Amino acid sequence: MGSLARQVCMDSRIREQADVLVEQCAEIGEGDNVIVSGEPPSEDLLVAVAERCGELGATVDVSMGSDRAHRAYMRAVDTDDIELNEMGLAKVTEADAMINVRGQRNMTETSDVPPEKTQKRRAENKPIQQQVMDKRWVLTQFPTPSGAQKAEMSTDAYEEFVWSAINKDWDAVREHQAQLVDILEDADEVHIKSGDTTDIRMSIAGNVVKNDAAEHNMPGGEVFTAPRHETVEGEVLFDKPVMAQGREVNGARLVFEDGKVVEHSAEKNEEVLTSLLDTDDGSRYLGELGIGMNRDIDRFTYNMLFDEKMGDTVHLAIGMAYEDTVGEENERNDSAVHTDMIVDMSEESYIEVDGETIQRNGTFVFEEGFDPEA
Amino acid sequence: MGSLARQVCMDSRIREQADVLVEQCAEIGEGDNVIVSGEPPSEDLLVAVAERCGELGATVDVSMGSDRAHRAYMRAVDTDDIELNEMGLAKVTEADAMINVRGQRNMTETSDVPPEKTQKRRAENKPIQQQVMDKRWVLTQFPTPSGAQKAEMSTDAYEEFVWSAINKDWDAVREHQAQLVDILEDADEVHIKSGDTTDIRMSIAGNVVKNDAAEHNMPGGEVFTAPRHETVEGEVLFDKPVMAQGREVNGARLVFEDGKVVEHSAEKNEEVLTSLLDTDDGSRYLGELGIGMNRDIDRFTYNMLFDEKMGDTVHLAIGMAYEDTVGEENERNDSAVHTDMIVDMSEESYIEVDGETIQRNGTFVFEEGFDPEA
Repeated sequence: MGSLARQVCMDSRIREQADVLVEQCAEIGEGDNVIVSGEPPSEDLLVAVAERCGELGATVDVSMGSDRAHRAYMRAVDTDDIELNEMGLAKVTEADAMINVRGQRNMTETSDVPPEKTQKRRAENKPIQQQVMDKRWVLTQFPTPSGAQKAEMSTDAYEEFVWSAINKDWDAVREHQAQLVDILEDADEVHIKSGDTTDIRMSIAGNVVKNDAAEHNMPGGEVFTAPRHETVEGEVLFDKPVMAQGREVNGARLVFEDGKVVEHSAEKNEEVLTSLLDTDDGSRYLGELGIGMNRDIDRFTYNMLFDEKMGDTVHLAIGMAYEDTVGEENERNDSAVHTDMIVDMSEESYIEVDGETIQRNGTFVFEEGFDPEA
Repeated sequence: MGSLARQVCMDSRIREQADVLVEQCAEIGEGDNVIVSGEPPSEDLLVAVAERCGELGATVDVSMGSDRAHRAYMRAVDTDDIELNEMGLAKVTEADAMINVRGQRNMTETSDVPPEKTQKRRAENKPIQQQVMDKRWVLTQFPTPSGAQKAEMSTDAYEEFVWSAINKDWDAVREHQAQLVDILEDADEVHIKSGDTTDIRMSIAGNVVKNDAAEHNMPGGEVFTAPRHETVEGEVLFDKPVMAQGREVNGARLVFEDGKVVEHSAEKNEEVLTSLLDTDDGSRYLGELGIGMNRDIDRFTYNMLFDEKMGDTVHLAIGMAYEDTVGEENERNDSAVHTDMIVDMSEESYIEVDGETIQRNGTFVFEEGFDPEA
């Protein structure tokens, strides 16, 4: 029998990612019940996470999903027979923390599942999502060949991209982002303008501004809050593609009145957007306003976990507002949907907070090179 | 979008195995909660099982294990920190049925986990095993290259072996095996003699004889019951290897007095056998007497799921007796262990039931060619 020392012959960047997830994000300790889940290509990371959890004296439940089996099931089952997965709910209920790793072999594996079935399942499984929200949870990405392909990069270059965005000094990140949090706290109106196509205003008064450094997403690197959902007015063109239900929605455009989407269109896969908006009462309202600040994410990779953190961008999510972003006095928008959509703010763009320009073409008021009139 | 018809481009033997598991063994119906689990190489079967469950209107929870992550965790964790997996227990508790597919990449993946840790985990997770026993459950095998290697066969030949043993008319099997059940029901003493090395007697009076056709194991193909565990007397040499804790125990020999193992030895990995016997109070008593009757299993493949069903063999399991094999008047042997061990009955061997020879050199009294004095 070999020594019980760690497997040192693993890419050190995988170990570093595991340590970030286990220690900084999920803060695992002795006696914790931890669900560790991923896809087969991410297994090296699951190994490193399980090992770190073991060293810390936690109990782990490690599993890998099969999106091929999921797809086959979803196509075979009648929509009426899609019910809450009580087994999954019971499992999540017993967990203290969850570490979920994305890393599919084929990112479009569920692209031929009828959207109404996906929608039904999402609605039925809402109690699971709610349980997850009450735990310490973190969602991350493993750099797979499929992810590299989607990003139009080599696997080697994509690995470097992913691990640069993740493996860093998150205390320094938190401190930098706190400057934007200071501006947004106690603010009322946020006005986002980009070119001729996006001009939207919303109140965030009374809601909670979150500093996402090493929290629920890895990479982190955004500052976000919930709009007071009935105050959203104006129109937005999401000039980055939206991935939903395994498909790509391009050129999505939404028009808001009294917070509600009253008009929508897309250049490609508009029916996916329509299906999302029609999910339930809350899916036509905004649940999140986020501002991307992770400067190591320097390109769009068709992966929302990274794209929404990209510097020079803003994202809005239709659907559910996270509970911890809504102030006690304010109503929370609820929905089975939470889909982020990105606006590029790098050119002809600005963000105003209560009438004052706080970002121009991606550069913040507290950063070098900021020019409010640029 | 393609048609929603079944994926027909899959090896038809995989579909046939899925149908046997879903329909004949686990008897899945609308509204059932079904846990479907396996290892990555078995994914095709998980896809077919999930699809069939979907057609029948069940809810599935499909996942694949990572024995690499399990091994890393087990080596890293302190034995004292190994606790019941409450997440897994909660999940199993909500299930109506479980379909578990074996099909590892490397059958010795956990061979360098310290046995005392495996033993502790088995003891802690006993409530999970107990929950499983109360459900409709079935354990099967996918024909992987690693399984073929263990069997010293090509993958193609191993596939044919596995699917021949599984994909068959289980009603006909049940009828054939019922002839042995008839003999054992209402019987008292079973005497097993093989060469000079095995001579063991036990009472099965009052216990329940099970006809394993398409039940909890696939392949099925055995008739089994529980000995009245304190009546076992004599000695056994298990001339087929025993796989335990990822290791191979060869030449295991047990001596029983008043049902208890009072002497044991093995030619290879005796310490694994010792560790098994020392698990708890019940691990030195027998929990099962089984007689293999699956004639399509015509060779030993180092896989108990198949080996114990092989024609011309008998197997004894130390440890836990299945609840449904113990009569109401009899005491059930309980243990965290249930390890089967095989005696070859093909030569110089016989089985006597209450003094009457019912099998000689593998051929039963109700089969052509039977000669009590052969």
